[in-house]
Amino acid sequence: MRELRERIAREGRNLGRGILKVDSFINHQVDANLMMDVGKELGRRFAHEHVTKVLTAEISGIAPALTTALVLHVPVIYARKSKPITMPERVYRETAPSHTKGHVVELLVSPEVLCRDDSVLIVDDFLATGQTIAALARVIEQSGAKLVGIGTVIEKTFEGGRAFLDARYDVPVESLVVISDMSDGRIVFAE
Amino acid sequence: MRELRERIAREGRNLGRGILKVDSFINHQVDANLMMDVGKELGRRFAHEHVTKVLTAEISGIAPALTTALVLHVPVIYARKSKPITMPERVYRETAPSHTKGHVVELLVSPEVLCRDDSVLIVDDFLATGQTIAALARVIEQSGAKLVGIGTVIEKTFEGGRAFLDARYDVPVESLVVISDMSDGRIVFAE
Repeated sequence: MRELRERIAREGRNLGRGILKVDSFINHQVDANLMMDVGKELGRRFAHEHVTKVLTAEISGIAPALTTALVLHVPVIYARKSKPITMPERVYRETAPSHTKGHVVELLVSPEVLCRDDSVLIVDDFLATGQTIAALARVIEQSGAKLVGIGTVIEKTFEGGRAFLDARYDVPVESLVVISDMSDGRIVFAE
Repeated sequence: MRELRERIAREGRNLGRGILKVDSFINHQVDANLMMDVGKELGRRFAHEHVTKVLTAEISGIAPALTTALVLHVPVIYARKSKPITMPERVYRETAPSHTKGHVVELLVSPEVLCRDDSVLIVDDFLATGQTIAALARVIEQSGAKLVGIGTVIEKTFEGGRAFLDARYDVPVESLVVISDMSDGRIVFAE
């Protein structure tokens, strides 16, 4: 997605330690039309996987997951990080270390919305270490549903997430923009 | 929106104390196509307000705010409840009591994404007491931007939010489905 890459080159900020600030168009403020294009492209790449549900983690995964679900005409589930009072007692619960938050986050999904008949596409804004996505994949395993693909908006290859996921899950992993290096204040695109 | 009302009548659960469980199609799991219809209808109702930004509060406001922003072809901002490392030091900060969570939540918006030239539509999933929406309106005031309207998916009139907002803000307040009574386990629609 050339438009997305150009936008990152223009507005993205390298804050050091691998942290990419894109909160003027991807998280915090979201460029809705650009996010629809993200959904169209992820939807196109997974159009033949017979997806029945898109799964993401709150908060910044919601926008790309929703637009992808719109294109695929399926519901989207966002795993909660804390348990709302509307959630039943028994839930699918996994944890993932958050390297930007510096602590472990919980990911909770209600058994009411995910079942063994589902074919699930995971969508998130970033593929970094792959830990959050792996936790979502374990939620899918708990439910008995089938993981059919993983799609992210921005991949940072130098954090090793793709290798981590490829070693564990035999599904296509697609990222729309790939960043190979953020050392020395740079943002280097792989393609 | 008849489809939305029928969906609430069919799948919504009255959990008591005014709490409506709609997490199979509005929050947690989101019916993407229904949420797009929500955005189309809110977009239609505010089409003449010259909206430049849609503002919501994470988490469950994001989906309806994003689809409304898609229809209005403007960016959407979600106020953060905790400060990410990508946010600058100085932010617009307001607080609101959360009656479902039982404590006070912070709402943070970066001055980088909201400025005095903006005409802002607030969108949220629920209009209950109006406290969260009023906190978002105070964020808009802090920024010098102009509040031009308030749109919500589901209004619970018995919690008084509309009267609270009408007394403070001279802007249109639109809700797509209005619930007038949830006593005795019922869900009574106003229209």
